[in-house]
Amino acid sequence: MNVSLMAIEGLPEFGPGADIAALVTEGATRAGVPIQRGDIVVVTQKIVSKVEGQLVRLADVAPSPFSTAWGAAHHCDPRLIELVLRESRRIVRMDRGLLITETHHGLVCANSGVDVSNVEGGEVAAILPKDPDASARRIRDAIVARVGHDVAVVISDTFGRPWREGLVNVAIGAAGLAPLQSYVDARDPRGFALKSTVQALADEVAAASGLIARKLNRVPAVIVRGVSYDSANKAGGGAKDLIRPPERDLFR
Amino acid sequence: MNVSLMAIEGLPEFGPGADIAALVTEGATRAGVPIQRGDIVVVTQKIVSKVEGQLVRLADVAPSPFSTAWGAAHHCDPRLIELVLRESRRIVRMDRGLLITETHHGLVCANSGVDVSNVEGGEVAAILPKDPDASARRIRDAIVARVGHDVAVVISDTFGRPWREGLVNVAIGAAGLAPLQSYVDARDPRGFALKSTVQALADEVAAASGLIARKLNRVPAVIVRGVSYDSANKAGGGAKDLIRPPERDLFR
Repeated sequence: MNVSLMAIEGLPEFGPGADIAALVTEGATRAGVPIQRGDIVVVTQKIVSKVEGQLVRLADVAPSPFSTAWGAAHHCDPRLIELVLRESRRIVRMDRGLLITETHHGLVCANSGVDVSNVEGGEVAAILPKDPDASARRIRDAIVARVGHDVAVVISDTFGRPWREGLVNVAIGAAGLAPLQSYVDARDPRGFALKSTVQALADEVAAASGLIARKLNRVPAVIVRGVSYDSANKAGGGAKDLIRPPERDLFR
Repeated sequence: MNVSLMAIEGLPEFGPGADIAALVTEGATRAGVPIQRGDIVVVTQKIVSKVEGQLVRLADVAPSPFSTAWGAAHHCDPRLIELVLRESRRIVRMDRGLLITETHHGLVCANSGVDVSNVEGGEVAAILPKDPDASARRIRDAIVARVGHDVAVVISDTFGRPWREGLVNVAIGAAGLAPLQSYVDARDPRGFALKSTVQALADEVAAASGLIARKLNRVPAVIVRGVSYDSANKAGGGAKDLIRPPERDLFR
């Protein structure tokens, strides 16, 4: 049993309107790691946002008095605060200069996933894709059309966690694989029933990709090969299945 | 850039007192994947607990009136509740039949990490190792003594997360690598300063190992090869560095 993670190196800059599927498929072949049947292609949220034009010039954001006051109190750019609030449907925590929000997608993360690093001059913010699962489906369908066989696509983003230091990659979009792998009715080798073991497979794939797609290495796409998964694209599914419904959540 | 995850298959059952380093080193060679310089060996908490005798017969646990009442209200074994409380220093959430606790190590997880699956007959509970970083150091030192070169060891456990469905593996013990990789002073290719990007490398390694070490596959050890890391064993460090100090935590 063997899983390989391969960086697709040498990819160009991704600008608005770029064809991610074409660039990644051709880039993988050129890099000597052509996409194979069953591969999971992980692409970073950053390139998806850029390609989809999910970029906001901070100069175009007019901060409210609330954002201005919070920014002044915590030495943050009030235009960025305003944008973070605009991208959220609820504030989960607003404390000690940190802003943990629930995005319109239902993702709970710092600053609504708004990211000002690695974008032109620091004055342009990348916001999350409007519908990351739809983005993943589009990229997947276009890759499948090119390579002629089944693949899965995961869109990764880098999130913090409560209780633990450091960031890990999680899946904010997915297509072609069931993001949750359930062992609810399985039995372990001793015959003892496992009650409710549900593995967040897509999140583990995203986290694994973080082992090579380091920020500074400019590796926006990684191939994960050898993972067995349910290719559950017919079921709809998607990474939204990884979002715990509020009524089941003890920490909202 | 390439990372490989290799299951060490064919390992025997690990009983109390077993020599993990010997079994894993020899098992890897026998499985055709001898441990190489710089490899990260991930072993599951379950085998470490078993080898260290961290097993409790539920018949030996006398539940308090509090545990008995909670167990009755939520259809849980009151002896298990009692054990979970004994293994915790604080209850973080106790709601809807779920018990999220802070263990004596400072780990926040469900049921203090107490696990009744996959252990003799379901009547024996495995509790976490007393000091998982010390366990990781012992295993690492013994592997290094056998193979004659540097390796790192991560002890993984399977945790839930707030806000997200499904379980992922995290690192509860580590030796031979800095569990956090910091980009605090690094600059991205455009010269824009990254303010505080700290990657939870050991957690990403643990999560990646989950892609092959599925519960039912009985793969208690995985080799992760090709990850660049700081071999910071001199600094002490360990997976306890991944635990966010309460004063910096918005969710305790």
